[in-house]
Amino acid sequence: MTHFGNVNKIKFEGAKSTNPFAFKFYNPEEIINGKTMEEYLRYGVAYWHTFAADGSDPFGAGTMVRSWDKFKGMDLAKARVEASFDFFEKLGVPYFCFHDVDIAPEGNTLKESNQYLDVIVAMIKDYMKDSKVKLLWNTANNFTNPRFVHGAASSNNADVFAYSAAKVKKQLEIGKELGGENYVFWGGREGYETLLNTDLKLEQDNLGRFFHMAVDYAKEIGFDAQFLIEPKPKEPTTHQYDYDVATAYAFLQSYGLEKHFKFNIEANHATLAGHTFEHELRYARVNGMLGSVDANQGDTLLGWDTDEFPTDLYSTTLAMYEIIKNGGLGTGGLNFDAKVRRGSFEQDDLFHAHIAGMDAFAVGYKIANQLIEDKVLENIIDDRYVSYTSGIGKEIVEGKANFKSLEDHALGLTEIKNKSGRLESIKATINQYLLKAYAGE
Amino acid sequence: MTHFGNVNKIKFEGAKSTNPFAFKFYNPEEIINGKTMEEYLRYGVAYWHTFAADGSDPFGAGTMVRSWDKFKGMDLAKARVEASFDFFEKLGVPYFCFHDVDIAPEGNTLKESNQYLDVIVAMIKDYMKDSKVKLLWNTANNFTNPRFVHGAASSNNADVFAYSAAKVKKQLEIGKELGGENYVFWGGREGYETLLNTDLKLEQDNLGRFFHMAVDYAKEIGFDAQFLIEPKPKEPTTHQYDYDVATAYAFLQSYGLEKHFKFNIEANHATLAGHTFEHELRYARVNGMLGSVDANQGDTLLGWDTDEFPTDLYSTTLAMYEIIKNGGLGTGGLNFDAKVRRGSFEQDDLFHAHIAGMDAFAVGYKIANQLIEDKVLENIIDDRYVSYTSGIGKEIVEGKANFKSLEDHALGLTEIKNKSGRLESIKATINQYLLKAYAGE
Amino acid sequence: MTHFGNVNKIKFEGAKSTNPFAFKFYNPEEIINGKTMEEYLRYGVAYWHTFAADGSDPFGAGTMVRSWDKFKGMDLAKARVEASFDFFEKLGVPYFCFHDVDIAPEGNTLKESNQYLDVIVAMIKDYMKDSKVKLLWNTANNFTNPRFVHGAASSNNADVFAYSAAKVKKQLEIGKELGGENYVFWGGREGYETLLNTDLKLEQDNLGRFFHMAVDYAKEIGFDAQFLIEPKPKEPTTHQYDYDVATAYAFLQSYGLEKHFKFNIEANHATLAGHTFEHELRYARVNGMLGSVDANQGDTLLGWDTDEFPTDLYSTTLAMYEIIKNGGLGTGGLNFDAKVRRGSFEQDDLFHAHIAGMDAFAVGYKIANQLIEDKVLENIIDDRYVSYTSGIGKEIVEGKANFKSLEDHALGLTEIKNKSGRLESIKATINQYLLKAYAGE
Amino acid sequence: MTHFGNVNKIKFEGAKSTNPFAFKFYNPEEIINGKTMEEYLRYGVAYWHTFAADGSDPFGAGTMVRSWDKFKGMDLAKARVEASFDFFEKLGVPYFCFHDVDIAPEGNTLKESNQYLDVIVAMIKDYMKDSKVKLLWNTANNFTNPRFVHGAASSNNADVFAYSAAKVKKQLEIGKELGGENYVFWGGREGYETLLNTDLKLEQDNLGRFFHMAVDYAKEIGFDAQFLIEPKPKEPTTHQYDYDVATAYAFLQSYGLEKHFKFNIEANHATLAGHTFEHELRYARVNGMLGSVDANQGDTLLGWDTDEFPTDLYSTTLAMYEIIKNGGLGTGGLNFDAKVRRGSFEQDDLFHAHIAGMDAFAVGYKIANQLIEDKVLENIIDDRYVSYTSGIGKEIVEGKANFKSLEDHALGLTEIKNKSGRLESIKATINQYLLKAYAGE
Repeated sequence: MTHFGNVNKIKFEGAKSTNPFAFKFYNPEEIINGKTMEEYLRYGVAYWHTFAADGSDPFGAGTMVRSWDKFKGMDLAKARVEASFDFFEKLGVPYFCFHDVDIAPEGNTLKESNQYLDVIVAMIKDYMKDSKVKLLWNTANNFTNPRFVHGAASSNNADVFAYSAAKVKKQLEIGKELGGENYVFWGGREGYETLLNTDLKLEQDNLGRFFHMAVDYAKEIGFDAQFLIEPKPKEPTTHQYDYDVATAYAFLQSYGLEKHFKFNIEANHATLAGHTFEHELRYARVNGMLGSVDANQGDTLLGWDTDEFPTDLYSTTLAMYEIIKNGGLGTGGLNFDAKVRRGSFEQDDLFHAHIAGMDAFAVGYKIANQLIEDKVLENIIDDRYVSYTSGIGKEIVEGKANFKSLEDHALGLTEIKNKSGRLESIKATINQYLLKAYAGE
Repeated sequence: MTHFGNVNKIKFEGAKSTNPFAFKFYNPEEIINGKTMEEYLRYGVAYWHTFAADGSDPFGAGTMVRSWDKFKGMDLAKARVEASFDFFEKLGVPYFCFHDVDIAPEGNTLKESNQYLDVIVAMIKDYMKDSKVKLLWNTANNFTNPRFVHGAASSNNADVFAYSAAKVKKQLEIGKELGGENYVFWGGREGYETLLNTDLKLEQDNLGRFFHMAVDYAKEIGFDAQFLIEPKPKEPTTHQYDYDVATAYAFLQSYGLEKHFKFNIEANHATLAGHTFEHELRYARVNGMLGSVDANQGDTLLGWDTDEFPTDLYSTTLAMYEIIKNGGLGTGGLNFDAKVRRGSFEQDDLFHAHIAGMDAFAVGYKIANQLIEDKVLENIIDDRYVSYTSGIGKEIVEGKANFKSLEDHALGLTEIKNKSGRLESIKATINQYLLKAYAGE
Repeated sequence: MTHFGNVNKIKFEGAKSTNPFAFKFYNPEEIINGKTMEEYLRYGVAYWHTFAADGSDPFGAGTMVRSWDKFKGMDLAKARVEASFDFFEKLGVPYFCFHDVDIAPEGNTLKESNQYLDVIVAMIKDYMKDSKVKLLWNTANNFTNPRFVHGAASSNNADVFAYSAAKVKKQLEIGKELGGENYVFWGGREGYETLLNTDLKLEQDNLGRFFHMAVDYAKEIGFDAQFLIEPKPKEPTTHQYDYDVATAYAFLQSYGLEKHFKFNIEANHATLAGHTFEHELRYARVNGMLGSVDANQGDTLLGWDTDEFPTDLYSTTLAMYEIIKNGGLGTGGLNFDAKVRRGSFEQDDLFHAHIAGMDAFAVGYKIANQLIEDKVLENIIDDRYVSYTSGIGKEIVEGKANFKSLEDHALGLTEIKNKSGRLESIKATINQYLLKAYAGE
Repeated sequence: MTHFGNVNKIKFEGAKSTNPFAFKFYNPEEIINGKTMEEYLRYGVAYWHTFAADGSDPFGAGTMVRSWDKFKGMDLAKARVEASFDFFEKLGVPYFCFHDVDIAPEGNTLKESNQYLDVIVAMIKDYMKDSKVKLLWNTANNFTNPRFVHGAASSNNADVFAYSAAKVKKQLEIGKELGGENYVFWGGREGYETLLNTDLKLEQDNLGRFFHMAVDYAKEIGFDAQFLIEPKPKEPTTHQYDYDVATAYAFLQSYGLEKHFKFNIEANHATLAGHTFEHELRYARVNGMLGSVDANQGDTLLGWDTDEFPTDLYSTTLAMYEIIKNGGLGTGGLNFDAKVRRGSFEQDDLFHAHIAGMDAFAVGYKIANQLIEDKVLENIIDDRYVSYTSGIGKEIVEGKANFKSLEDHALGLTEIKNKSGRLESIKATINQYLLKAYAGE
């Protein structure tokens, strides 16, 4: 196989095993609950942050130093493919994710863009044959190009709606071609800058139509990936339509789409919406809508999407708790939608950052498993809600009570006895599990 | 009619007409669009803030000086009724709202509480006969008493669920008795302090059951008030289940309740959830769910519910714009769920504050009407979305397009032409309407 | 004078007087308090936003359509100068502001950059001769180039400190050459990403050294512009050293610099720090440190620097109130550090946006003047604090009281009588002044 | 000794050693760096939260069940003293802190209040003789009583200023009587509700005068406790004067008070001001102003002061890092200004919560010590800032450079070489230290 002069001409420079940065906690072969960590922790690398981003921010130019910087255009696209598969292998990660514009440059026309994509997709497919890495999901970037200035499927411009549809159509075909296990819709600029010039109803109706068309087309071509919506509350637009999981769930129900979608939940998007990561996971879980995870973290003292690599062990523990209680993520995975800081511009930082994140989720997985094995939270909950297992409580949950029977019960009560919620001791218990996780090793 | 020794023994002290505090902009008899301001602006007084609150906050004791302070228990309850009707009349406000505990003290038992309520409700009913003031809505306070420490309908304690049901049952009966036009459910402590001890699924299922029982009981007794849910994101609990309109709408759809409820939208709750007031109103409006309004304002630099009297004319204008576009609020109204600052402790401040709010909404109403009469925003929107009225855009909205036809269209495009969204000039136009509202034009 | 082939070859396309976007409220010749609006409202155009920005954001490429887009390098720089002076004249604005990199491209070396600057500065100087526009302030952009990744004067790299000093030195010389009336220091990346790798003490000491060197060099070359620090709390760094006015004031006092600096206060930076715009102005004013203003506004529901054009009349009124009470801004001005929205990409939007802002501050100025003329707030304050004009209050402010004499006084008090703060009626009064400003009264 | 009928009649019910809630990590006798944990970790109990608070919040009545609830007035005050010393002993905590109103009821006059205080202070002094517990600090509550509605030392009412002075005078005397090691000033309502009715300059001048009088009086009576200011940004007032450490430091410098005060830094106040806890500690430390700590934590997704017991080990580790680098807290300590949740209303929760906090700081102390012993961050910083130890960097820090010499240096640079800041790997290293802290035990 020759793509770019020589096989693997472009290596991902920087070494996985430089101490002290090798894995400390993630062990792909360690078996927990009958599965290896590698099987369960379906980590993914985000092509955009890791291979396409340059470290620029609203106040500064790019800083990243990359071994593929010397190339341009399609040569750059090919070099990135080569480097990426070298990186996947060195890191030992089973999945990757991309937007169309991450893997190939845009052409002057849609046709040309699609031709570029075809070349790179063929190259990726070839590389995948020799690799164990698989496509967790792909998506269309319908927000960067100026044509999407007023949105894509929610644009006020029907040409833009059409163009967006064509791009998603192409990505559905590519997803099928590469065996993608999910397909993600992140709203991008589907939202508004100001209500003053916005027809909210038409825009949301059009979004509904767009999703139905996507469902239909995937069915038509036999692409059975799980469709995922990724909520985010604000940024880049002032108000994004998929504000949070609940908002997007209301939308899906309103438009009869709830059977066709699940959610791709991003930690930093959760906190920007005022929720904890675990809240969004729990809400999706109990509604049967938890699909996949964008594994990162934000800084709750900052008001923008920082997309940091996840290192907070409280957060990874509670996230993995929800995922285990969900019976795993199914076709979903833990995609590191995370970027090294602008100041972490050396290529090695990409290794260190991914390892930091993989270790953090491995630790979280281990602690969450132990908590569940010991029924720590389950016992607390069984005890707290015991009143619903008999008597008036049982009647309530079985639908046998009504306001009259409940009033009768209430009139007969001489005392109502509540018990402490014990938040402080539960938090102390979580700390004990955290600190003892590696105490015997 | 004698209630409290003498008729109207307890006057609301303080005078409506002390300059410079009389109405400047609200004129009940002014006719706009065929209705008097009084008919359209269905203002309501919140009994809790105006007659029951003492100005205490987490760092300080009550400061309010009130003419009814000298009474206690049922005498206090009666004095408040007398003072409140005096206030309603002096202020010229058509509606009021209350929780059970605002109007009558709690007894030692549910039975005793209900007996107290019966006495006061009879007194209120008598007063209403001689007054034009009507009941906009009533509700049960299922959050203040320690029994509700872990929630009411979402409590882990089935006795508390039953007690809550009994209290709502009583309020539904009282609502019917007093001719209440709506009935409000604010979540209070329906939410969680921490996910670690919470069975989210059971709690939400129980909430769903509770609402169905309320719907059934209202039907049973022939109480046909509009049911309203009042979203709030956080406070007092860390996470409230009715986070915002979209979240509550998702809930209602999931539990098959969306036909039985609309929303009571509070400005300060909107901003605590990260939305503008007008966003929540718009979202409810386009989904046919806009029921009533809790008219107040928050301070977006503070993180708690400040419940200030509304004075921001931008906010009242955009709110009234949504209400007019909604064809009015139906049975709903503009309830001043607002409290005078702790430092505004004199009785006159209650007049000044309500007048400030009534004037602010009257101004907003006038400006919004002028904007609509001149089709200011309508013309902008017609022009912006014109592409959906013909060609490919028309096919999209008529359901005739699919991904293939759209791709064909997109491949044929040589250029995509967007137009400026003109936010800055639209905002300047709003200012012009604001400044010319009372310019003699 | 020929610069770029022909004089004024590059016009700023788009017309100032297109209705409905001409000035509605700003009248340069209107005399208030003995000065024309033009004299008092020293408006400035921000070269970076208006002539150099392209509308890109973290999720999208540039959208702006500009008449000078066809040029590159030094030709682009010259075209911008020509267009800018055309814009200044058409808009009728008396001042402009720039960073070094806004007016000229960076060369491969510092020497080359300086040579480019010399060419453009000469051209600007020539244009200024034929124009009434003056330089409000200039500054060095020490944050965009990758070399400033870890800060400039607070960089961990001494070479970067030196390079930053050289850039500021050049700008001080240019400020003197062009008659700049102020010189601004915005912290850029003077702050930290994480405390974990930061020597806070050394970085702040170095900042102190840097400012002293700047003061010394300005004195040496006889550049007597007012030095200004522009506080901002976060973005781009996680924590900026000049968090707010108070923080920067503490710094200046600690390093003995408070006599040499005042503050350039930006509205959006104030709100990002949790303060109102007027708070920052007031704090600076009462400490004798109010120098100049970056006139824009933020969106308090968003967590990043949106730099919107100012249109909120409450904000402009309260800002102008502080400025008038300060006796004006001295050498300072009202620089529109504001950018048209990414969706407002047409050239005309720049006119509309500046006019919106100039009108908004003109209205604010007029209302604030009327409030002051009528002593609305002054009378409230005189009355509220009257207790400090006699008796124990007078002793306190005259330094004649101590804890013993105060205790004696307190022990003798039989009652402490406070009065309402009247916030609600004061806010209503502000609304009345706003609505009657152009009512013909 | 008999106080309340019988010695220790009122026990603090609830047992310290109920498993699983006994100390897991705090071992008072463990020696680290030559001191026992007990000596170094100068824990304090906050009398107000633990013995006086009832669990009420703005939406609910008190829930706490306490063994002293049956008493009233001075009997209640005495019962609390007995219970508190029982609690101190059972918990093994070396310090406590109080406001005047926590320990004794207010009388009808200042004189009466002081008499009540005298009785209780004598009782406390007696108990202290038989106990190892000491007074970390006391303070005056000048914010709860309605007389402080507009502030205390910054009130617009001179009588209130005087009354506040009298209360602080009494507390200084009590601090001396009980051997208090510090004296704290928390701003309470020293701030403003609105700038519209506020004379900011007079209020801040009066605050300055008040602090000088306090310094003078402490000197007069020979009370040599460390004076501490406790910053908080907002709540209860809209804007508090001691917004954060930097703001208060600016104030102290402006009024010539910086030699007489240090800071008492509260974690939750830090985050409400937009800072991390460690930022405030670091800022105070490098300015020589770190005095004591209010050890709690907030919820950064909530906008009010939650005062949770500290359990976040990242936060306790980074806090203890700053404290160790400060050479300890001197006379200061770690006061648990923290309250059990309203839902944690059983008396045992007070044990569990304090143990959770003491364990969390013990863990943080151990990890921070290990980090320092291994020079983890010190080596990173030495390496990052090495450029300031020779050449141009050395000249900068030694004051030998100026803008000309720096420009010469910059012109000679052919390349500027920065190094990665390595944030991701540093965070991974912190995790490794956390997880291995108890791995060998």
